[in-house]
Amino acid sequence: MSDLTGPDELLTEVLARYDDAPNERLKIVMQAAIRHLHEFVREVDLTRDEWMAGIQFLTATGQICSDTRQEYILMSDTLGVSTLVEMLNYSPTEGTTENTVLGPFYAAGSPERANGESMLDDEDPGDEVVVRGRITDPDGNPLAGVVLDCWQSNTDGWYQVQQVDGQSDFNLRGIYRTDDDGRYEIRTVRPGKYPIPHDGPVGSLLKANNRGWMRPGHLHTWVKHPGYKELITHIFDRKSDHLYDDAVFGVRESLIVDFTPDESGELAATFDFVLDPA
Amino acid sequence: MSDLTGPDELLTEVLARYDDAPNERLKIVMQAAIRHLHEFVREVDLTRDEWMAGIQFLTATGQICSDTRQEYILMSDTLGVSTLVEMLNYSPTEGTTENTVLGPFYAAGSPERANGESMLDDEDPGDEVVVRGRITDPDGNPLAGVVLDCWQSNTDGWYQVQQVDGQSDFNLRGIYRTDDDGRYEIRTVRPGKYPIPHDGPVGSLLKANNRGWMRPGHLHTWVKHPGYKELITHIFDRKSDHLYDDAVFGVRESLIVDFTPDESGELAATFDFVLDPA
Repeated sequence: MSDLTGPDELLTEVLARYDDAPNERLKIVMQAAIRHLHEFVREVDLTRDEWMAGIQFLTATGQICSDTRQEYILMSDTLGVSTLVEMLNYSPTEGTTENTVLGPFYAAGSPERANGESMLDDEDPGDEVVVRGRITDPDGNPLAGVVLDCWQSNTDGWYQVQQVDGQSDFNLRGIYRTDDDGRYEIRTVRPGKYPIPHDGPVGSLLKANNRGWMRPGHLHTWVKHPGYKELITHIFDRKSDHLYDDAVFGVRESLIVDFTPDESGELAATFDFVLDPA
Repeated sequence: MSDLTGPDELLTEVLARYDDAPNERLKIVMQAAIRHLHEFVREVDLTRDEWMAGIQFLTATGQICSDTRQEYILMSDTLGVSTLVEMLNYSPTEGTTENTVLGPFYAAGSPERANGESMLDDEDPGDEVVVRGRITDPDGNPLAGVVLDCWQSNTDGWYQVQQVDGQSDFNLRGIYRTDDDGRYEIRTVRPGKYPIPHDGPVGSLLKANNRGWMRPGHLHTWVKHPGYKELITHIFDRKSDHLYDDAVFGVRESLIVDFTPDESGELAATFDFVLDPA
């Protein structure tokens, strides 16, 4: 034992307890977490009361989690950590389409829909819109048969998985595929902005810091094609509120589209994807 | 919105969301926490799977908490954070007695005991011991009427508050006071080493890193006297195992005593306190 006469000696001793950790990667992660945790506590000179408030916040955040609610992911989202992890794990090559966060509302098993078919199975008061475009490789060659697994909120801001009793089974969910020329066409409704859950500890913390809990309207898509990196991204509506204060830091300029009347008078946006070879 | 083209731009944007935070102290704490959290994630280049393992660990740690179990304090203890917070919040002046962690087993309301009286109310197979000494100011002047609120585990390593049905109401708990010469004398049993709770997420993490979960035997005392800083500390038995790998980093060299036979043949240790003026 080094005598723990001060914070430096303490940190040295805590880190040394991992010298025999059998999993080298876990050891690296633990030691880095401990160093940053100690540095944080020392930097702000944390008081006992603040420490206890932190203990209570972390406890409450865990306790509100359930099969249908993940408050720690929400915390990660609102602190920008989820976006950071995405950035570190998916680096689009210059010129290929940017990714963004998956979010908590994806569900596998959406139905195949034909190009041009609407994902909207229910009544909805919003504007019908079209999202269309082309998917190519970085050289501009069309990619045929690319899968776009799509989901979005309705005009009121709710996803089907949040309202299993209030929406049809696959409302605003669908799997599209590009044609031989790499083209896809999705009919849908203008996606609604929505609040992230804010009635729990994370919401209280956002409120205490004058932070918002809204996300701008967007269409999610998970793009898959053999030989290319899987791309998880959103397409944002430039007309939506909260593009500039998305609570979870998901917006990228390159992912914002304008819905404008096309030749047939439909509100349409073009979004071309460039996939990144794996 | 700055376009979130990379981790640096992301961090700048996340921090900027706190520019209007109304509570200046909370803003400082949040911004420091966010910086260190992002630095940690970048430093270890956290993978998506590791991020999810972290989310699940934090969630499980919250979910196991109950009225009688605080797994987040346990996590703080085992990462050295509790000790660090104590160090930052109580800086003993050179020459005064060192503090250490409070621990989770303190309970108010212990009975007053006369000097020399035993705290041991129940049968116990261990060695009876005496802890005695003098409490002075930094100049060596005796302090009379100083309160020592004491508690410890029995030979099997259990505190009374952990075994409310298995031990007498105040077994191994007592409030002593110094006499006019500043002297105190506690009769008790040699305190047992014990495991911290290790059947939950924190225990699993300790095991995964080949870390122990034992604490060496010790007598807790909370020393109070008007005009002096409240001192929360332990007195450790040099004969106990785990002095050198205390799971919660509570041991200080200056707090270790030797129990040796005194003139009357009793196993006794002397521990003099020097209180720090407030």
